[in-house]
Amino acid sequence: MEQVFTYLVPVLGIIGLIVMAIKSAWVTKQETGEETMVELAGHIAKGAMAFLKAEWKVLFYFVVIAGIILGWSGTLVANSSWIIAISFVIGAFLSAFAGYLGMNIATKANVRTTQAAKTSLKKALEVSFTGGSVMGIGVAGLAVLGMGSLFIVFYNMFVISTGGDVNGDAMATALEVLAGFSLGAESIALFARVGGGIYTKAADVGADLVGKVEAGIPEDDVRNPATIADNVGDNVGDVAGMGADLFGSYVATILASMVLGREIVSNDNFGGIAPILLPLVIAGMGLIFSIVATSFVKISKETDSVQAALNKGNWISILLTVGASYFLIDYMLPEGELVLSRGGSISFTKMGVFGAVVIGLIVGFLMSIITEYYTSMGKRPVNSIIKQSSTGHATNIIGGLSVGMESTVLPILVLAGGIYGSFMAAGLYGVAIAAAGMMATTAMQLAIDAFGPIADNAGGIAEMSGLPKEVRERTDILDAVGNTTAAAGKGFAIASAALTALALFAAYVGLAGISSIDIYKADVLSGLFVGAMIPFIFSSLAIAAVGRAAMDMVNEVRRQFREIPGIMEYKAKPEYEKCVEISTKASIREMVAPGAIALLSPIIVGFVFGPEVLGGLLAGITVSGVLMGIFQNNAGGAWDNAKKSFEKGVMIDGVMQYKGSEAHKASVTGDTVGDPFKDTSGPSMNILIKLTSIVALVIAPHISETPHGTVSEVEKVEIKKEITYKDGKKIEKVEKIVIN
Amino acid sequence: MEQVFTYLVPVLGIIGLIVMAIKSAWVTKQETGEETMVELAGHIAKGAMAFLKAEWKVLFYFVVIAGIILGWSGTLVANSSWIIAISFVIGAFLSAFAGYLGMNIATKANVRTTQAAKTSLKKALEVSFTGGSVMGIGVAGLAVLGMGSLFIVFYNMFVISTGGDVNGDAMATALEVLAGFSLGAESIALFARVGGGIYTKAADVGADLVGKVEAGIPEDDVRNPATIADNVGDNVGDVAGMGADLFGSYVATILASMVLGREIVSNDNFGGIAPILLPLVIAGMGLIFSIVATSFVKISKETDSVQAALNKGNWISILLTVGASYFLIDYMLPEGELVLSRGGSISFTKMGVFGAVVIGLIVGFLMSIITEYYTSMGKRPVNSIIKQSSTGHATNIIGGLSVGMESTVLPILVLAGGIYGSFMAAGLYGVAIAAAGMMATTAMQLAIDAFGPIADNAGGIAEMSGLPKEVRERTDILDAVGNTTAAAGKGFAIASAALTALALFAAYVGLAGISSIDIYKADVLSGLFVGAMIPFIFSSLAIAAVGRAAMDMVNEVRRQFREIPGIMEYKAKPEYEKCVEISTKASIREMVAPGAIALLSPIIVGFVFGPEVLGGLLAGITVSGVLMGIFQNNAGGAWDNAKKSFEKGVMIDGVMQYKGSEAHKASVTGDTVGDPFKDTSGPSMNILIKLTSIVALVIAPHISETPHGTVSEVEKVEIKKEITYKDGKKIEKVEKIVIN
Repeated sequence: MEQVFTYLVPVLGIIGLIVMAIKSAWVTKQETGEETMVELAGHIAKGAMAFLKAEWKVLFYFVVIAGIILGWSGTLVANSSWIIAISFVIGAFLSAFAGYLGMNIATKANVRTTQAAKTSLKKALEVSFTGGSVMGIGVAGLAVLGMGSLFIVFYNMFVISTGGDVNGDAMATALEVLAGFSLGAESIALFARVGGGIYTKAADVGADLVGKVEAGIPEDDVRNPATIADNVGDNVGDVAGMGADLFGSYVATILASMVLGREIVSNDNFGGIAPILLPLVIAGMGLIFSIVATSFVKISKETDSVQAALNKGNWISILLTVGASYFLIDYMLPEGELVLSRGGSISFTKMGVFGAVVIGLIVGFLMSIITEYYTSMGKRPVNSIIKQSSTGHATNIIGGLSVGMESTVLPILVLAGGIYGSFMAAGLYGVAIAAAGMMATTAMQLAIDAFGPIADNAGGIAEMSGLPKEVRERTDILDAVGNTTAAAGKGFAIASAALTALALFAAYVGLAGISSIDIYKADVLSGLFVGAMIPFIFSSLAIAAVGRAAMDMVNEVRRQFREIPGIMEYKAKPEYEKCVEISTKASIREMVAPGAIALLSPIIVGFVFGPEVLGGLLAGITVSGVLMGIFQNNAGGAWDNAKKSFEKGVMIDGVMQYKGSEAHKASVTGDTVGDPFKDTSGPSMNILIKLTSIVALVIAPHISETPHGTVSEVEKVEIKKEITYKDGKKIEKVEKIVIN
Repeated sequence: MEQVFTYLVPVLGIIGLIVMAIKSAWVTKQETGEETMVELAGHIAKGAMAFLKAEWKVLFYFVVIAGIILGWSGTLVANSSWIIAISFVIGAFLSAFAGYLGMNIATKANVRTTQAAKTSLKKALEVSFTGGSVMGIGVAGLAVLGMGSLFIVFYNMFVISTGGDVNGDAMATALEVLAGFSLGAESIALFARVGGGIYTKAADVGADLVGKVEAGIPEDDVRNPATIADNVGDNVGDVAGMGADLFGSYVATILASMVLGREIVSNDNFGGIAPILLPLVIAGMGLIFSIVATSFVKISKETDSVQAALNKGNWISILLTVGASYFLIDYMLPEGELVLSRGGSISFTKMGVFGAVVIGLIVGFLMSIITEYYTSMGKRPVNSIIKQSSTGHATNIIGGLSVGMESTVLPILVLAGGIYGSFMAAGLYGVAIAAAGMMATTAMQLAIDAFGPIADNAGGIAEMSGLPKEVRERTDILDAVGNTTAAAGKGFAIASAALTALALFAAYVGLAGISSIDIYKADVLSGLFVGAMIPFIFSSLAIAAVGRAAMDMVNEVRRQFREIPGIMEYKAKPEYEKCVEISTKASIREMVAPGAIALLSPIIVGFVFGPEVLGGLLAGITVSGVLMGIFQNNAGGAWDNAKKSFEKGVMIDGVMQYKGSEAHKASVTGDTVGDPFKDTSGPSMNILIKLTSIVALVIAPHISETPHGTVSEVEKVEIKKEITYKDGKKIEKVEKIVIN
């Protein structure tokens, strides 16, 4: 069975990619509409590609240099190999390729959605959601294919061909080399998410400050030189950034589960590797069920709820995955007790493992709805900000900050409960499997997420092309749903990042050859403090970067209005590409410092202070990163919707207030503050916590306290203890017999 | 020697209190000036007393109920006693009394400083700083007297009279009962700091919003009904709140050092209790040197620098303490190695202990100057906010948030270095002694801190009484210095809280009978997550409370302007006491929820999940609380000074901008957001992290994993290990001989 299931995984990945190609072709052959639309969409697509190319150039050097260092370092310790460099390059390449696929389809689907919106809402949803599905299925397909095939190669290379132990060093080496894939993927995600986040907000804030405020022209107006950059930003940040983020999480959770699975001695029909193989198979299966579920996302008439259609698809994918997981786990794992000796050495059964999958899915679900509650219009949190807008800018800000901080409570309790519950269910393997379970439907989640910015872009194109009102109304319906799913998606992304980081953390401890991370030790506690500080400086840098880049944008837009006569009268075209270039350059430049912190801090701490202090650092980064992520995402989301509420008018102390009122102006301040919070620094926390963990995992064999990187073994021991007293001295005799 | 030194401590405390009484009498006999001034000062004093009385009423019930529970629970375990209730009540009483002394002298010194400012700056400084000294010396004197005398009582009661072991359970019980004193003190600090913080900002924001913005009258105008409440707030928040905070830190650091000192087997001339006695003696000595140093704080002519005079006094107190500590430690502690077996069991010499004292003083000094850098006018951080004010409210806010987050980096590195260094110097005892060293000059620190609000009040009275311009100019000089010392004082307070919490944390682990806090265990990690979230919800509640209370104040002020004709023409007096009452009621009401979180969360987690998970919770609260404290304090301070910079005019992009410009308006928004940050939620973090730790310490014997609360013993062991292989099995034989 081992062979069949091992080879099944990449096959599932290939099936996914075929489906993706079919859906992609379908989108491409949809109508694009009149010339103006095509021209504008062309500008956006060109701008997006320009960003990708600029990013790739930097990434190329980074990947080459990091790859060489990795490959060289892989030869230094027993439990690694130079092949990790190849694994790393493939991971980086596939992640970049996934970003390309997503951007490509999104910049095609946007204009086709606009065109479809001329006909009906049904058709517009079909085009935009299919576009999103291409992204989701593509990302998941590439991950499953990549991880699945590399596992086959490394398993054969390091374990089977050497006759090595599937629970021992041989498999540890295979998985360490596979970790390179994850590192590659997450490194690209760093650039995509942080760079993309800076790009999109620099363009957005820059476009708004001069366009809306100074020139008094509406959003998405063709006369605004920064408007194309703004629309490119939606693709760069929300499509490519989110895609790379989830690609990274997806890969990392699978990897972490596999690393922990190795430590389970399993008497199964899969050559003892069922616990290692299981997360791969769950991922492949989740991909297929996500594909099935996408076909349920449709509406039949104009008045149907788009949100309900998306929810239906989401639920179907989750329920199918739960059901199938049950049979899969029951089939693959052996009867009786499974033991993972580390982390308190609890034993569990295969139904415990299934329980962990369910817990993971529940955590993901709860995180999404809590995020939705804190950022939705009409709910208490957003209403409280609206009310506080009536007394000015300052109280609006105070309200948003307060809401953001408050919004950390439930997610943290859910997360803590999830950690505790999945650990009780199946030990540390359970924590990792919970993450893997949660990520199983990534294809569906990402399809829903990517649909939002496509609809947003479609609305922008409708506005810029001056299409009839009902077209914009239809895209606005989709856009509004997209805003809600974006908030929920952020909740899902941070939850997945948190569980992924914890799973990696658990895997790291094993590979680093330590058995505890005792914060009662002064150096480990210092590591915890420094780690917890890193999300603060990372956020500070990201926010400040947006400020600086937006300034550049403002100056450029002002220059164009001044130097190119006739823009305001539609007589001359603004130089869109100049603004695109500014955003591109700024984002590439500004992501270096935060990126360096994320990559280097674990390396420095690990080599200088050792693996246990690094463990403290990771815990600090994870805990504080999750909190700062939730705080910033939700504060930003709540401010955004508080501002949006004024469009329909809101009742404050018995008086209706609309756009243009003083209260509305205060709410715009909150929204502007929230922009970098929710789209740059907040989502960057996901990458920060995952990347530092994966870096730690990769360097683990190098800093291991056990010589030659021997991982702690699974021991069954018999301990005899005898305490006697002689001459007033207490004598303890301990005899430990290792029997496995 | 034991007797002499033990009895010396309370004597030093009494000397301090005598000096305080003399200085207090000197202040009281200074001139109070004309009738208007006396009347206004009377309103402020009355308002302050009204707050104290309202607070005491709530506290009375709290102390009675908590005391009964504590006393009852003290009878349940071996390592405690019902007497802890008495200890608790005394701690609460002395803390409240210290607050009363401070408020009393501050509300006398304010008007006398105004009067003195008519003569000269020299005289004004003399009066205001002497007022501050009364507060500082009083707080330290009460703490030294209280801790010193109770230690004598409990040492005799539980150790000497029972012939118990000074390193064993007998002394553990004595110190556990003494911990009640610290719990009492810190509980009062909670109410004083959080309640005071809400009070002062509700009054401040309320007074500004209606007075300055709506009615267009200047700050501190007698026509503003909330102006008295605003001035009361300075006393309630900055004097009583800060005083209670530092009183709590002072007591807690001494206690934690004593608890850890018990675990050192010391062959000294003090009956083996030198390590326990040392922190008490250092505190007493620091008090005396602080008194000596206060006499150096003076200027001789108008143009002398007030800041330099304060710095001089501060440095003298620190240097005298360092010098004396050297001789004291050399005299008291024995030669040779000292061993504290827990936390990695490192051994150290007495010079290591002296090193820890020095490290503590350096950490305190560095924290102060870093805070000053991030919040001072003319430095990069504040300048960056000024620059970003030119593009509006939103960019001003983004700038301040970014500065606040960035400002966590250096303090955390200093703190982490301090923890690491003091641990290397003298193990966990070193961490506690570093905190005690830092707090040794509390009397001086607090004198400098309390001088600020006195000067602030003096300026308010000058303004309200319509005194000549040069009087206000002199008080303004003092006020400006007070703002700087307030920022530095906040840095010192958070650093002291952090080190105190860590020392308590170390002490807690010993009493809880656990040997590690392993965040690699899922439940402990969950505890860490939940703990790290608590500062977020605590801040959220505190900020929201200020918002609500300020609203009440705004409505009341509006009502008075509407219903009392002639206020604006000085024909009718506003009902000041109504506003005072609103602030008082709101602060008492709003502090319940955060207070309950701080008190109950460690109790619930400790009893439900056990001591190690509680350890995780404490670590989470401490790490995240320190970060949130620094972030909020510094962001608030920087916003404040960015706004103040506009008064003299600032150059932005080559253009001078003054008060009233758009950029200035944006800076006012930042200042208003920063108000609750820097004066309510930020400083509350100190109390939160200390109080949760002290609660944990008090409940430690109840949740201890060792039956009957036996603390881990100091063991000297000889370990023989033999590893053999037989039939392919590894057999380890360990023989441990305990020789002490």
